[in-house]
Amino acid sequence: MQTGIGFIGLGIMGRPMAQRLLAAGFPLRVWARRAETLAPLEAAGARVCDSPRELAREAGVVFLAVSGGADVEELVLGEDGLIAGLRPGSVVVDHSTIEPATARHVAARLAEVGAEFLDAPVSGGEQGAIAGTLSIMVGGAAEALARVRHLLEVLGRHIVHVGPSGAGQLAKACNQLVVAQTMQAVGEAITLCEASGVDAGRMREALLGGFAYSRILEVHGQRMLAGNFRPGFKAHLHQKDLSIALSAAAEAGVALPGTALVAQLMNALVGSGGAERDSAALVTVQRRLNGLSEDLT
Amino acid sequence: MQTGIGFIGLGIMGRPMAQRLLAAGFPLRVWARRAETLAPLEAAGARVCDSPRELAREAGVVFLAVSGGADVEELVLGEDGLIAGLRPGSVVVDHSTIEPATARHVAARLAEVGAEFLDAPVSGGEQGAIAGTLSIMVGGAAEALARVRHLLEVLGRHIVHVGPSGAGQLAKACNQLVVAQTMQAVGEAITLCEASGVDAGRMREALLGGFAYSRILEVHGQRMLAGNFRPGFKAHLHQKDLSIALSAAAEAGVALPGTALVAQLMNALVGSGGAERDSAALVTVQRRLNGLSEDLT
Repeated sequence: MQTGIGFIGLGIMGRPMAQRLLAAGFPLRVWARRAETLAPLEAAGARVCDSPRELAREAGVVFLAVSGGADVEELVLGEDGLIAGLRPGSVVVDHSTIEPATARHVAARLAEVGAEFLDAPVSGGEQGAIAGTLSIMVGGAAEALARVRHLLEVLGRHIVHVGPSGAGQLAKACNQLVVAQTMQAVGEAITLCEASGVDAGRMREALLGGFAYSRILEVHGQRMLAGNFRPGFKAHLHQKDLSIALSAAAEAGVALPGTALVAQLMNALVGSGGAERDSAALVTVQRRLNGLSEDLT
Repeated sequence: MQTGIGFIGLGIMGRPMAQRLLAAGFPLRVWARRAETLAPLEAAGARVCDSPRELAREAGVVFLAVSGGADVEELVLGEDGLIAGLRPGSVVVDHSTIEPATARHVAARLAEVGAEFLDAPVSGGEQGAIAGTLSIMVGGAAEALARVRHLLEVLGRHIVHVGPSGAGQLAKACNQLVVAQTMQAVGEAITLCEASGVDAGRMREALLGGFAYSRILEVHGQRMLAGNFRPGFKAHLHQKDLSIALSAAAEAGVALPGTALVAQLMNALVGSGGAERDSAALVTVQRRLNGLSEDLT
């Protein structure tokens, strides 16, 4: 069994994660579609591979952190993909946020060559990736998780084995639908105050001490009041994640009325110039709806 | 100026609050429409008055903790009401949850006799009332709050002056609409897991460590999983509070689409046997909608 570590996907989340693994002393192979993202990792000591297949040949554990399910399928199952190089006993850890059904499909294909696939989406954003404080939701075989847990502990501090393949992605979908609805709720409270002539900052302060407390009220509530929508987590990615949640709901045959509503409002944000803003800019849709100042900065 | 303290409304919330004031050494006058609620307070040393008017004559500060706006108007402005007995400089502190407009109206009438009215709704439930850890959202004159703050500190530990008359009630309406929407979000996450064959308890555990964290996910999420809907805070009272939020929204001319949705679902809970259950039983509506086990215990 190969014992090296590989990392593919060196964007906002992947780069600091790869850098933490390097800094922790693990020799790292990297590959990226966009060659310009490789330079900082190469400078820090990572070895650049020519293809996912080559990387898979040299690594017993491969991390992915890319944008969507199509990217994961291409990287793992495509021509020159990981599957062509992985040895039996290897583990692929996918930190991307993708459809649970895609995670199950890729896991089943890797099982045919004796390799394990863990869906391991994260919560905590760029800051959590830099600080190694991510929350990691894992789906797949417990035994495979046990073999890579020491590596995940370099990246996060709250690692939960949710269930079999796809369960990590389903938990991430739950995370995103809860976050979005909580943001909408906080945004409604703020606009109710704004339209009523009541200081929304005082309202937030009052609510922080009680049962309405959430991380969203604390962090995004402050962003909404300050009109600070620098990402953070971009609205078009949250839109994608709500679409994953609604796909998973359709697959399971379950109605999620609150999620459906907030997904529509997120569409309005993305479609009206907010795609690259932090998704907390959802409050600007609620403000615009009501003819209040949008404060989109 | 009278320096005694009066308390009217000795129900689930009012009784432990009145008892804390007694235990802290403040001589207490009490009155109640339902005489049977007086006995425990009288046994603990409170003096029973014959009417709100008589109580107002002997108390410089009067606390109210009743069910709704009509009760507050009757107790304060009705025949034999507080207004007939209050001396100039007295302060009425209303812990009930009522319409902001009613709070402003009652405050304006009391101002005519030189008395102050503070709307001071609370969050934290019966446990918070017993422990003196309530969150108290205050609307009214800052000077009046300053005069009674030492008393409020016996009842709560997070006391925020939100703004002028009605602002405390508006903040409470915000609290209730945020709580309800967060409960619906958590309920949707749970049913998505249940319908997908994923362990909802593991999902909750994963989410607690990240950005989806809320007190609702922690406390009510556990209730929803355990099917434990003993109140707590009863669904019909949450229904009433959402109705207050939507009235305040109509008055301000602001659309709250998420609040409107969750108010409809709360109607379904109350209308289908859940009125006396904890409002976290909202998840049973989401389960029933989707043909999942209701677990209403």
